[in-house]
Amino acid sequence: MAPLIDIHTHIYPPSYISLLSSRTQTPYIHTPSASTSPPRLIILPSDNDASIPLSKRGRPINSSYSSIPSKLAFMKTHQISTSIISLANPWLDWLPSSAAAKHATAINEEMESICAAHHPRLYFFATLPVSAPRAEIIAEIQRLASAKYAKGCIMGTTGLGAGLDDRELEEVWEALARTQTLLFLHPHYGLPAAVYGPRAAESGHVLPLALGFPLETTIAFTRMYLAGIFSRHPTLKVLLAHAGGAMPFLAGRVHSCVLHERALGGEVVGGKSIWEVLKTNVWLDGVVYSKLGVLAAVDCVGKERVLWGTDHPFFPPIGGEGKEEGGDGDTDGDGNGGVEIEWESVRMNVEAVRDAFGPDEAGAQGVLGANAVKLLGLDGSGEWNCHAGVEAGS
Amino acid sequence: MAPLIDIHTHIYPPSYISLLSSRTQTPYIHTPSASTSPPRLIILPSDNDASIPLSKRGRPINSSYSSIPSKLAFMKTHQISTSIISLANPWLDWLPSSAAAKHATAINEEMESICAAHHPRLYFFATLPVSAPRAEIIAEIQRLASAKYAKGCIMGTTGLGAGLDDRELEEVWEALARTQTLLFLHPHYGLPAAVYGPRAAESGHVLPLALGFPLETTIAFTRMYLAGIFSRHPTLKVLLAHAGGAMPFLAGRVHSCVLHERALGGEVVGGKSIWEVLKTNVWLDGVVYSKLGVLAAVDCVGKERVLWGTDHPFFPPIGGEGKEEGGDGDTDGDGNGGVEIEWESVRMNVEAVRDAFGPDEAGAQGVLGANAVKLLGLDGSGEWNCHAGVEAGS
Repeated sequence: MAPLIDIHTHIYPPSYISLLSSRTQTPYIHTPSASTSPPRLIILPSDNDASIPLSKRGRPINSSYSSIPSKLAFMKTHQISTSIISLANPWLDWLPSSAAAKHATAINEEMESICAAHHPRLYFFATLPVSAPRAEIIAEIQRLASAKYAKGCIMGTTGLGAGLDDRELEEVWEALARTQTLLFLHPHYGLPAAVYGPRAAESGHVLPLALGFPLETTIAFTRMYLAGIFSRHPTLKVLLAHAGGAMPFLAGRVHSCVLHERALGGEVVGGKSIWEVLKTNVWLDGVVYSKLGVLAAVDCVGKERVLWGTDHPFFPPIGGEGKEEGGDGDTDGDGNGGVEIEWESVRMNVEAVRDAFGPDEAGAQGVLGANAVKLLGLDGSGEWNCHAGVEAGS
Repeated sequence: MAPLIDIHTHIYPPSYISLLSSRTQTPYIHTPSASTSPPRLIILPSDNDASIPLSKRGRPINSSYSSIPSKLAFMKTHQISTSIISLANPWLDWLPSSAAAKHATAINEEMESICAAHHPRLYFFATLPVSAPRAEIIAEIQRLASAKYAKGCIMGTTGLGAGLDDRELEEVWEALARTQTLLFLHPHYGLPAAVYGPRAAESGHVLPLALGFPLETTIAFTRMYLAGIFSRHPTLKVLLAHAGGAMPFLAGRVHSCVLHERALGGEVVGGKSIWEVLKTNVWLDGVVYSKLGVLAAVDCVGKERVLWGTDHPFFPPIGGEGKEEGGDGDTDGDGNGGVEIEWESVRMNVEAVRDAFGPDEAGAQGVLGANAVKLLGLDGSGEWNCHAGVEAGS
């Protein structure tokens, strides 16, 4: 069987946990004084609501957020050969300028060590010190180009603070293109809470996660396109989270609006249509939970440019009939993040690929793993031995 | 050849033009004192920018916005047999409560007369007095049920002011379901301007129209689903503008987020998944400008539930090589809205359907017209005689 490779899977390494635990404003980790309660991770701005007691804000975190054995156990359960781990949002957007580079380098070095210790199971997408002086961001990109296990870097949509169409980012795009560093573009801030209306809390995180996240990505990428970035940096490589948000479905409308926009003279931006940019500069993950989503993603960028992922440790199974209640990352309450049972969210995304490709087994295997091997130059990906320990086969 | 039927086409009838011309706040029409300049339509909140001279705010309007001969000429050029015309946004959302019902009835009666005079070329989606007392909204729904040419009603996403998940709308949904009045859900307000960033104006209306509009629809419909409206009103019929915004592509993610949401107990809302609601209660227009968009729409709701449209008078061809510059609705400057030349935006949406269905001619003809005939119970739809006058064949 071809390898199953997860290119969208997050981790909070100890250095990042420690950084977040030292804070009292979003993003932060609150550790209740009662040792029986799990620490709470408060990352979404809407979660830091003063009317909610600290012990209930955000979400409980458990070992699945930061433990490598837990990640490996999850991988084994789902027969995932290799994971490209990335720091979870909101990365380092919020650090003071003078501290950013130091922390980014420390976290990236820690990720490098983790991956070295678990080769060929783990690689990583590095974190950039976006709030640092430009020269320091570029120096980190340059340094990462020779990091053995770094396969690109992950970034949010705020850039230096004014979005990704900020002219001040030119040198960053230039450095990413020059070093051929894949940029994994990932949402975090969603949309202003007003759009979800006064009843949003009744459905928990559904509106910000199901819609805010993908719509943020869609807007951010469209702004990059409209700013002509891909015309000035034609070799820039971008991987869009959650199958591009809604980009595949809305690309036609963006293209038509551009062609019919007087302010743009009815011409595509920088001589390239958004379709051309999508097929040239963009890869999409397959975290879209539907056959039609996978088909649209494949139609949009090509079947060799869609890469499978899980979004672990998010979207674990939650307590239901016959299951114990646990934290968001721990279904069965045993503190290991419910990693030994199959996750519905993972199953949905495997099935979506299988359903989309039908008899085209090579196409399905491409999305499930082979495309990632090729794009990222992975080596030594192996199969799990189901009857041996976690590390067997590595 | 099967009829080409346009279910998404707007008009500003004289009574609405007059209402908008009497105002100086959004939405309004400004008529410059110099008679050589066209009136300006200022409908998007972002267009009413005090730093822009009134003579340049919003967009110029011409006869294609309000003239029925212009609409019919456009239809003839594109061989559109029948159009279901609807009042353009923002409808009557902004009227004082006491005035709303009177204006809605007047506009709907004017639309009824227009359609009667042009049967079987024209039908209409009526307008509701959403700011009126509930009893008056419901009375208008009831009155419309016996209006011969009304085929449903169009509504924005604000409802009574608090969105479509507002509990105060229960009786309105009940009345729409009871009378089996199709609700054409259409965006207008987009998203808060901050999400487009400081460079948004450089690309004119691209971000609010290409993304704001469809994302508004996606959020509004998802909020309706999360509020359990379709479980309490299982026969409610909704037509979503612009192929559902991004709903087909994001339905999988919404479904997964619901299943993984502790606040909802990991259960679908009201016993129905969003997929089930989409396939039971929802129709989508085909205004999506891409083959992959049509395929996703068809996969989402079924091929008999996608209905073709143009969005006329918006997205006319703009001035280019060899063409004269004109207003947003008038390419060739002759004041008739460029209706005698083929529109690229129309061609894109016909081609998207043809490409999506390939050899399935019946499927394509369904979306291009037959589905609308069946859903709306249209009669007498005829073909244009290309060599005769505008009214020939009707």
